Amino acid sequence: MTPREASADATDPALGFRAVVPAGGAGTRLWPLSRAGAPKFLHDLTGSGRTLLQATVDRLEPLTGPGGVVVVTGQRHREAVLAQLPGLDASAVLAEPSPRDSMAAIGLAAAVLLEREGDVVLGSFAADQVVDQGPGFAAAVREAVVAARAGYVVTVGIRATGPSTAFGYVRAGEPLGVAGAPSARHVRGFTEKPDAETAAAYLATGEYRWNAGMFVTRAQVLLDHLAEQRPALHEGLLRIASGWDSDRRGRLLAETWPTLEKIAIDHAIAEPVAAAGGVAVVPGDFAWDDVGDFASLSTLLPERGTGPRVLGDAADVVSLDAEGGVVVAGSGRVVTVLGLDDVVVVDTPDALLVTTRARAQELRSVVDAVRERGREDLL
Amino acid sequence: MTPREASADATDPALGFRAVVPAGGAGTRLWPLSRAGAPKFLHDLTGSGRTLLQATVDRLEPLTGPGGVVVVTGQRHREAVLAQLPGLDASAVLAEPSPRDSMAAIGLAAAVLLEREGDVVLGSFAADQVVDQGPGFAAAVREAVVAARAGYVVTVGIRATGPSTAFGYVRAGEPLGVAGAPSARHVRGFTEKPDAETAAAYLATGEYRWNAGMFVTRAQVLLDHLAEQRPALHEGLLRIASGWDSDRRGRLLAETWPTLEKIAIDHAIAEPVAAAGGVAVVPGDFAWDDVGDFASLSTLLPERGTGPRVLGDAADVVSLDAEGGVVVAGSGRVVTVLGLDDVVVVDTPDALLVTTRARAQELRSVVDAVRERGREDLL
Repeated sequence: MTPREASADATDPALGFRAVVPAGGAGTRLWPLSRAGAPKFLHDLTGSGRTLLQATVDRLEPLTGPGGVVVVTGQRHREAVLAQLPGLDASAVLAEPSPRDSMAAIGLAAAVLLEREGDVVLGSFAADQVVDQGPGFAAAVREAVVAARAGYVVTVGIRATGPSTAFGYVRAGEPLGVAGAPSARHVRGFTEKPDAETAAAYLATGEYRWNAGMFVTRAQVLLDHLAEQRPALHEGLLRIASGWDSDRRGRLLAETWPTLEKIAIDHAIAEPVAAAGGVAVVPGDFAWDDVGDFASLSTLLPERGTGPRVLGDAADVVSLDAEGGVVVAGSGRVVTVLGLDDVVVVDTPDALLVTTRARAQELRSVVDAVRERGREDLL
Repeated sequence: MTPREASADATDPALGFRAVVPAGGAGTRLWPLSRAGAPKFLHDLTGSGRTLLQATVDRLEPLTGPGGVVVVTGQRHREAVLAQLPGLDASAVLAEPSPRDSMAAIGLAAAVLLEREGDVVLGSFAADQVVDQGPGFAAAVREAVVAARAGYVVTVGIRATGPSTAFGYVRAGEPLGVAGAPSARHVRGFTEKPDAETAAAYLATGEYRWNAGMFVTRAQVLLDHLAEQRPALHEGLLRIASGWDSDRRGRLLAETWPTLEKIAIDHAIAEPVAAAGGVAVVPGDFAWDDVGDFASLSTLLPERGTGPRVLGDAADVVSLDAEGGVVVAGSGRVVTVLGLDDVVVVDTPDALLVTTRARAQELRSVVDAVRERGREDLL
């Protein structure tokens, strides 16, 4: 497979660029802060005053211009998304009847955008990541848009600050040679989360970066790849999109949505297309985190002496002889910690979690135990 | 000094015995469960369904007979005490305008009882201790009453289950030789809380027992000792007692109470009178604890596999890979603990404490920090 021809003038790299923001995922490893009814992306996890969703849109709108952002979210979160984004037109929120993973979400957005606007370049940026709001992100996206116009599926490879075992990696190959995208390279492949030794070996080569799951591509290119890789999913999404902005939407969703294959865009497109030479990577030299757990969350919060960092009102937290760690002060109560290092305390109005930074990755077991206790109301 | 003569027939050892229950103390080391407005003695700390105060009275009433218990407490706790003890006559609660330590509390009760009933034997038993409800306690008290009739100030020496550094000790000497009190011995002295090595040395002698601060004595004997040791305090208490059951009580309290010396009965009477040969000890071979901190509290709660013990509804506590420790589930929220051994989690509606069993003794520093934060409302 070779990159398809560019369909638009590339003199203004961002022209016609549209952002797709998948806002899904349970955020189980941030329970009890993140809940099924109020998942991670609806929360301010950095104390910035903006939720992850809001910060994502704040970052993208300057690049797309007004009306250039589409959010794909679950039906149950549609109202919350619109409430958090009062500048968004209701038509810019695509509500899924049920979660069908990232390929269906992004593919739906691509198909709807193709119907509405033709073959625009779109970039998919998850609503639940933390990205530095400086110029680095925009620089990466502009280059990615240029490479996308040249027919590539373009991912942003985040400069690794260490051999993380919490992220997948993307491996860069030869320079792409596309004018206006001087840093873009071919992707030699993607990897799942490695062990620590493997991660260190990756970084030693200089070829690997973190895969943030950001994909920039022309809508038609994405859908053509999908037609080749997953024809049934492609056909279903096109059928739904054909009636999205009509009175047929409800019927089409009811008939077709439940039949769609659940698959991540990484497996459906990024990996096979990369193997065929159709994926490029541009360097993303900015701070990024997917806030995968409370240990990760703690690194995003301001330091507070040697004590635990605080999400919420630090005036509500009293810590003595407690180094590191994180306290989420989320109930208005005073939280006191004495003599525990690297502790994680997450205080919400109806559920409390006490664990350690080292165990924060294992939170699923707690969520499972709460479910077994018959307390789905807390999940 | 020699023991004063018995003033009553000792054929029924419990005849005329009255119980005085000092219900005071902030219980700072059980914060945030214990508060100034709802101190330790008002709480059920064992999950028995009875508060410490209620359990204390439950234990004493069979020994005194109906109407034989007097509670001395702060004015602000009078209503709560009466609410918890509906069987108590209002006159049986002596309300102090301000805390003046245990000598004033017990001395007041002795003086009031002397006015009301003459020279009865009274025993003082703090409202905030946990005592096994089996026959051992009654057996010790009956023997103490006999020795008290013979003119001694009698303490109960608790059989030590280990070299505790959290309690003071009482050292037994020669047998008392009072008929009906075969186990009673002279007290050679009292000690403050020892270090671990000293505590072990104490136990090795076989002469030491824990000092639970239980004192049994005739009212007149106590007041005579007080007249010798602390004449001003004695005089003030007698003046107040003379008008207690009259319309002069308020005026007398207002005039005299604030002038009373603040001193513990241990220092005012037990130590000096012991040095003079006037104090006896009877063995208390029953389980006892003063619930001095959360580490101590945890040992009083039922085991729950290897996980933390729970005060409150165990259905609200989910622990995984967490051995030992204690969770006070006091807010109705679900408390989850992952991967922390010997943790102490105290969850109340407006304040949360997270610490360890090993640090539980240092809670005062947390309380001080909360006060410095301007949150006296939580103390």
